[in-house]
Amino acid sequence: MRNIKLVLQYDGTNFCGYELQPGKRSVRGEIEKALHKLFKIKTRIIGVSRTDSGVHAIAQVVNFKTTNQIPTKRIPAALNSCLKDDIRILGAEEKGKEFNSRYAAKSKEYEYLIFNGAIIPPSVRRVAWHIKYKLDLAAMKEAAKILVGKHDFSSFCASRSDDKNFVKRIYKLSIKKRKLAVFSGEKIDLVSVRVKGDGFLYKMVRNMVGTLMEVGLGNKITSDIKNILYGRNRRLAGRTAPSHGLCLIKVHY
Amino acid sequence: MRNIKLVLQYDGTNFCGYELQPGKRSVRGEIEKALHKLFKIKTRIIGVSRTDSGVHAIAQVVNFKTTNQIPTKRIPAALNSCLKDDIRILGAEEKGKEFNSRYAAKSKEYEYLIFNGAIIPPSVRRVAWHIKYKLDLAAMKEAAKILVGKHDFSSFCASRSDDKNFVKRIYKLSIKKRKLAVFSGEKIDLVSVRVKGDGFLYKMVRNMVGTLMEVGLGNKITSDIKNILYGRNRRLAGRTAPSHGLCLIKVHY
Repeated sequence: MRNIKLVLQYDGTNFCGYELQPGKRSVRGEIEKALHKLFKIKTRIIGVSRTDSGVHAIAQVVNFKTTNQIPTKRIPAALNSCLKDDIRILGAEEKGKEFNSRYAAKSKEYEYLIFNGAIIPPSVRRVAWHIKYKLDLAAMKEAAKILVGKHDFSSFCASRSDDKNFVKRIYKLSIKKRKLAVFSGEKIDLVSVRVKGDGFLYKMVRNMVGTLMEVGLGNKITSDIKNILYGRNRRLAGRTAPSHGLCLIKVHY
Repeated sequence: MRNIKLVLQYDGTNFCGYELQPGKRSVRGEIEKALHKLFKIKTRIIGVSRTDSGVHAIAQVVNFKTTNQIPTKRIPAALNSCLKDDIRILGAEEKGKEFNSRYAAKSKEYEYLIFNGAIIPPSVRRVAWHIKYKLDLAAMKEAAKILVGKHDFSSFCASRSDDKNFVKRIYKLSIKKRKLAVFSGEKIDLVSVRVKGDGFLYKMVRNMVGTLMEVGLGNKITSDIKNILYGRNRRLAGRTAPSHGLCLIKVHY
């Protein structure tokens, strides 16, 4: 039995998310369909991040087992020919039989983009949250420091979660301005929230971003973030940031 | 009668183009509908570039006449509230009564993006032409020089055009590599073709890019470009590059 690791990208806009959902178009469903077409037998994949509907990925990692003898380097092109252009397999690698994309991951990195201004350019509408009122980035950076480290993140976990261990370690949580240029003439100022951690609870990044946004808008202050974190109660945190601003950007093994 | 100039952006993917077409969603149609909603009377707009279906714009310019007394600075937000998010009015300005967005333009600039590699990232699939075989950029740059200057561009004009004057002046035609970063972790290498001219025939930029691409692929050489240009016959030129790689980036008045 061969164990194949794939790295893939997708624009999350037209997916119900990573996980299978009856009657809906999921990332996992599309890849498993492509594998079925290629190998003629049902093949199950394991993904490192079960991204929600609308969430993007530039480096999702999955693995699957197969007895098929197709050369590894031919797998990306073969699968891509069976997939729509909003999802692309970038690379394939044969791993040892013990490799599991989810459990082998040491840490994951996400980026959340915010457009902070009056009129959001159409070119970033699918990748950035539009916040019209001016954000206090210094206050957000200060508040973000509270969340770095090993904590019980219950307050940032969505209620329908099946998570059991709420203690996670956040290695890095940076907030900075960056420019995005889709076309030459267009330099768009965005706010980028990057977070790296050893694991994430259901909707944790979006709940963290939504809460930090409240700080940026002056509705909450740094000590509120402490109370929210230590209160270990989802009802204490701010709103959930919308999914389309989020992207899985790296998985470290 | 007030004469208002608007600058606007759009993602061309879901438009039939700038011009009205029966039963289809056009840029002009959407803006005229929004103006009708706002002013309660039919208002006609004049646009500087009649972009085709799929072509994007980050600085399309239109103007319209109205007796309505809404403050100019309130116009963008008022119109945007009536428009879908793939089109945004960025600014409005009151001009003298003689101003005509089309005839007052001194020059226009377009950018055409190409992704030159095996697997195109989903994030650029709507803004870049995917060319798998390696392009010879040096040969393309050399050939591009032939097209700069004042010429009869009949060979690059699509046949169903109603253009009458085929002589246009190309001020600049540059071909260079550039990086595009949609998400932090993702730096995508693209080829950018930028062209600035005092006017363009129907599908002229796309025909120029399609022909230069043939040079990049080794199917044509620089002397062929001379023969095409001087032959003044559309059948001589290469294919028409697809619309989604093209963007109107600047209009000079």
